[in-house]
Amino acid sequence: MQKSLSVYDSDGSTFAPLVVIELVSETKEEAIAWLLNRVRDKQQDGGAELLVEQLTPGAQGTEKDNPNVYVVGASWQRLLYGAEDVGLFKEFNDGSMRGFTYANKHNFKEFQGDGDGFLSMAECQYIIKHGLDNLRAKDEAHVPGYPKMKLYPGKSVIRRMQSKGVLVQVFPLHEKEELKRLSFSWFKKIKLSFQPLDDIRHYFGEGMALYFGFLEYFTLALIPMALIGIPYYLFDWEDYDKFTVFAGFNLVWCTVILELWKRLSASLAYGWGTLSRKKAFEEPRPGFHGVLGVNPVTGRAEPLYSNAKRQLRIYLVSVPFVLLCLYLSLYVMMIYFDMEGWALMIHDEEPTFWTGLLLFIPSIIYAVVIEIMNLIYRYAAEFLTGWENHRLESTFQNHLVLKVLVFNFFNCFASLFYIAFVMQDMVLLRQSLATLLITSQILNQIMEAFLPYWLQRRRNKKAHKRMIKTMEDKELPLSEQVKLEADMSTYLGTFDDYLELFLLFGYVSLFSCVYPLAAVLVVLNNVTEVYSDAFKMCKVFKRPFSEPAANIGVWQLAFEAMSVIAVVTNCALIGMSPQVKSYFPESETQLILWVVGFEHFLLASKFILTFVIPDVPKHIQIKLSRLEFESLEALKKRSQAHGR
Amino acid sequence: MQKSLSVYDSDGSTFAPLVVIELVSETKEEAIAWLLNRVRDKQQDGGAELLVEQLTPGAQGTEKDNPNVYVVGASWQRLLYGAEDVGLFKEFNDGSMRGFTYANKHNFKEFQGDGDGFLSMAECQYIIKHGLDNLRAKDEAHVPGYPKMKLYPGKSVIRRMQSKGVLVQVFPLHEKEELKRLSFSWFKKIKLSFQPLDDIRHYFGEGMALYFGFLEYFTLALIPMALIGIPYYLFDWEDYDKFTVFAGFNLVWCTVILELWKRLSASLAYGWGTLSRKKAFEEPRPGFHGVLGVNPVTGRAEPLYSNAKRQLRIYLVSVPFVLLCLYLSLYVMMIYFDMEGWALMIHDEEPTFWTGLLLFIPSIIYAVVIEIMNLIYRYAAEFLTGWENHRLESTFQNHLVLKVLVFNFFNCFASLFYIAFVMQDMVLLRQSLATLLITSQILNQIMEAFLPYWLQRRRNKKAHKRMIKTMEDKELPLSEQVKLEADMSTYLGTFDDYLELFLLFGYVSLFSCVYPLAAVLVVLNNVTEVYSDAFKMCKVFKRPFSEPAANIGVWQLAFEAMSVIAVVTNCALIGMSPQVKSYFPESETQLILWVVGFEHFLLASKFILTFVIPDVPKHIQIKLSRLEFESLEALKKRSQAHGR
Repeated sequence: MQKSLSVYDSDGSTFAPLVVIELVSETKEEAIAWLLNRVRDKQQDGGAELLVEQLTPGAQGTEKDNPNVYVVGASWQRLLYGAEDVGLFKEFNDGSMRGFTYANKHNFKEFQGDGDGFLSMAECQYIIKHGLDNLRAKDEAHVPGYPKMKLYPGKSVIRRMQSKGVLVQVFPLHEKEELKRLSFSWFKKIKLSFQPLDDIRHYFGEGMALYFGFLEYFTLALIPMALIGIPYYLFDWEDYDKFTVFAGFNLVWCTVILELWKRLSASLAYGWGTLSRKKAFEEPRPGFHGVLGVNPVTGRAEPLYSNAKRQLRIYLVSVPFVLLCLYLSLYVMMIYFDMEGWALMIHDEEPTFWTGLLLFIPSIIYAVVIEIMNLIYRYAAEFLTGWENHRLESTFQNHLVLKVLVFNFFNCFASLFYIAFVMQDMVLLRQSLATLLITSQILNQIMEAFLPYWLQRRRNKKAHKRMIKTMEDKELPLSEQVKLEADMSTYLGTFDDYLELFLLFGYVSLFSCVYPLAAVLVVLNNVTEVYSDAFKMCKVFKRPFSEPAANIGVWQLAFEAMSVIAVVTNCALIGMSPQVKSYFPESETQLILWVVGFEHFLLASKFILTFVIPDVPKHIQIKLSRLEFESLEALKKRSQAHGR
Repeated sequence: MQKSLSVYDSDGSTFAPLVVIELVSETKEEAIAWLLNRVRDKQQDGGAELLVEQLTPGAQGTEKDNPNVYVVGASWQRLLYGAEDVGLFKEFNDGSMRGFTYANKHNFKEFQGDGDGFLSMAECQYIIKHGLDNLRAKDEAHVPGYPKMKLYPGKSVIRRMQSKGVLVQVFPLHEKEELKRLSFSWFKKIKLSFQPLDDIRHYFGEGMALYFGFLEYFTLALIPMALIGIPYYLFDWEDYDKFTVFAGFNLVWCTVILELWKRLSASLAYGWGTLSRKKAFEEPRPGFHGVLGVNPVTGRAEPLYSNAKRQLRIYLVSVPFVLLCLYLSLYVMMIYFDMEGWALMIHDEEPTFWTGLLLFIPSIIYAVVIEIMNLIYRYAAEFLTGWENHRLESTFQNHLVLKVLVFNFFNCFASLFYIAFVMQDMVLLRQSLATLLITSQILNQIMEAFLPYWLQRRRNKKAHKRMIKTMEDKELPLSEQVKLEADMSTYLGTFDDYLELFLLFGYVSLFSCVYPLAAVLVVLNNVTEVYSDAFKMCKVFKRPFSEPAANIGVWQLAFEAMSVIAVVTNCALIGMSPQVKSYFPESETQLILWVVGFEHFLLASKFILTFVIPDVPKHIQIKLSRLEFESLEALKKRSQAHGR
């Protein structure tokens, strides 16, 4: 914990500030007073029992600064109780991971003295966020001073104020010392080593650490592919029928790495205590609206929205919209092929160096257009999914991911499929693959890390200078630090990062048998991606709240779906190679039947393999069942003691 | 509960006998005394706290009768506590299903007065079985009087005595009144109505009721197929290319019925309280042996067996053995085709009525041989799976089911696949299908119900007469009833019944597009199957212990795998039909590509459909999440009350 910064609370004692709440500057006094009261109230009285103080402007404070910035902290006891409430798992004395309970605290391995240092700052911030999110309206009909900001018993106060725009943001503070250490071991020293995943998890939480773990795993898993690909590239450039072996390797590799990742991710999640964590009951997402009714599960008053209406919106609006976009994307693809043909015509008429260069222009333009279309579509998809009015954040995310995935997949790969299977032009396929891959990589790096960084530099040149100072000067006052961080961009989650990996995985697995260098390019990209992602997390964005996660969720499914499509594609490419065709000189039918048979065999093996390889390693399975067994035994004993 | 039968226990009070324990007649006195003591001991002292008495031989008792037959019962209180121990779910006052607790007993819907009639006899017997199975050795090194019958702390006493052959059997008693009522409503009156599933569950438990539910559902689901099939059969016998439409219907139907069954089974299991029941920790199966060690999960002393050794046995012995059997089956198939060709030759030389009949002989012989091979293989598979030495009954069952399924599938369908895709002779296919289907049905009915019935009649003609008397005379003394039931055959579980349904499902879904009458035959078979199965459960076999089950387990997976294979087969059959071929007169390649594309589309839709249709109906999902929510809330409150 950061000792250098502290705030005096109303009793005169100090507390470490963990989370910042920013309200709009013209917020009514009575609303502020009411909110702070609720935050400070005891939990028995329905409060959050947190410590909260207004941020006193620092020396450089100007009148332009928003006065309604509050820092929130909590007593150690409150945090420990909170750790029990949110269901944190910690290492027990016997080396197993157990749900933390306050009563049992001294039996946990890292609990020393009064428990200082037992919870990481990210965990404390998560606990405070949980406390704030669960601050619920009692019998208030609206937020004091705002008659239109309706409340009903059980409604989350923070969420209502946020959705109505009074609450600007709630974000956790960076921890400068820790961040400096993390940055150094993560991306500042150039060396060949694994990422400090445990430290990343310690600072950013499990969701983020799993992303970086997956990125690293994915990169390592690609290295064999890349190594095999280089000699293919160097010696057999035009001899693509030799790639049949390569494609075979590819297929086995895809299935195996995805299965092994599940096991690795289970090991990581077990060590971080998220594997056996029970999911709490999910509250409606902030944007959800509807007629007030009674939730059949909780019995609480809550807005309800008819499922039939939602289905209508999905099937009558969203699905046609997605199809329309797919059609549009197909149309753009056709224009690209026209351009391609036109460039080829010019080059064939009078081939010079410049017309040779011209051949690459359509692909580059197409790649840029694809990126732009993806971006626009992304906003449309978010709007539409929001409009579908899903009750839960998780369903919202699933529908959004599905929409975006389908379009991105189509957009990025349609032209390649067209070239491969309709035009059957392997040279063009290889060339398009290379340009698409390289262009989208460069664009991505720019869009992801450098653009936000540059935008931020422009937005507050003055602040930037202060930020530079932050990096060097540890003794920057709290108010300055809060102001600096409040102006940083907000990190919107790992969605885009996973999407990028997903598309790269597609390039490697779908067509690598015609362009083995793809794996090399992706490895290179991923290495820089680790650095740029790490940089943006540490320097460009506000600290995100840590998100407990036991696996990479819907992305595992997406990657598995891609690997199934890869089997089909690669089998088709193998069937089209002259080498294989030469085995069946007399009958094309025989060839196709053999290829189809082989493909079915591969698909069946894939499913059997997925079924046979256990998702959780044996030693972790044993630990998990021991925990379950003990809780069953405890329950038995308790009911015996209770009843008899 | 049966009031007419009762036994005086050692205190002179009466109890209703529920379960019978039979020891071999020469069992040593000290072992008997020790066992009875342990059964009667208080639970605190590690006993089962049950009531047990020796059966006093009736008037007709002869010297030949085994004197070591004991009847077990329990006090109502013990049974209610037991219901809590085994985790029974019962209907609560508010209509939801909740785990029964003794302390809370008056809040359960059907609990009246002192709880008489709250638990069904099957439930009481299950509770007693659970109590007996969990009777564990304390510090005895062996069973008294049997130095070789080794015990170690925690070893189940009953299981050890059973595996060493001292304990002959433990079985629950029939309930004559109830059985008579059930038989009447189930199969004695000929009428068009659903089976009394709730009564079946009440008498035989959930596992059995789910089997009969599935049998009924499957039959009903086949009726549309059968209705469509009849006109096809009547009007277009030789016009099999019209069956393309039929095959299309078939594919959709397969997927949909299996998905809907999952939902129906979830509804049934919810109503029976097994859906949300937590599985208790699984003990090693009786036949499991190994070096005494410490179980890493429970920390109890228990035999351990190295997983590597087991894997070696599986991959070096079992897998080669299964492959050898498959080869043998293939060899027999080839002999069948030789016979078939020979019969055809004779018929072609000089066609008479008798040679026409001769044409069917090879198929009939083949069907009989297949049944015999299946039977022999079944014993071999059971032996091998036992020798693999699986620790859990469930893994044992899974390995056994897998072995038997693969062989049965191969054995039953290999010849049909050969005829369909190698010989491409649709007329022969139809003929073979018909003979296979009809022969195997007739054989099955004989093997399943009539053979055991007849064997039993032969075995004890005298007893049979008494049994007939049992049916009419309610006042048969207890000792007579026990003796009669002890001699009845033991029902070995639903395995064979499901296997039969699985193969029938295969006949219908794989090839029905060439023989639409298959569905009609299967419907007819299933209707008689309901009656013969019901008859054998009520009249031929000992009452089985009720087995709580929430679904049909591994069979759901087997049926789904079959429906995937059905998609592939039917697409291939469609592609081979002259009607479809006529659309692509110039290019066979085009035809195959279209069929393969269509097949991939169907498979993809199938997986998406499986994913999209929720496995549990919405209203039951809500009830389940309400239960979960309440238990989370209760936990929260408890920890708050506890800690603060």
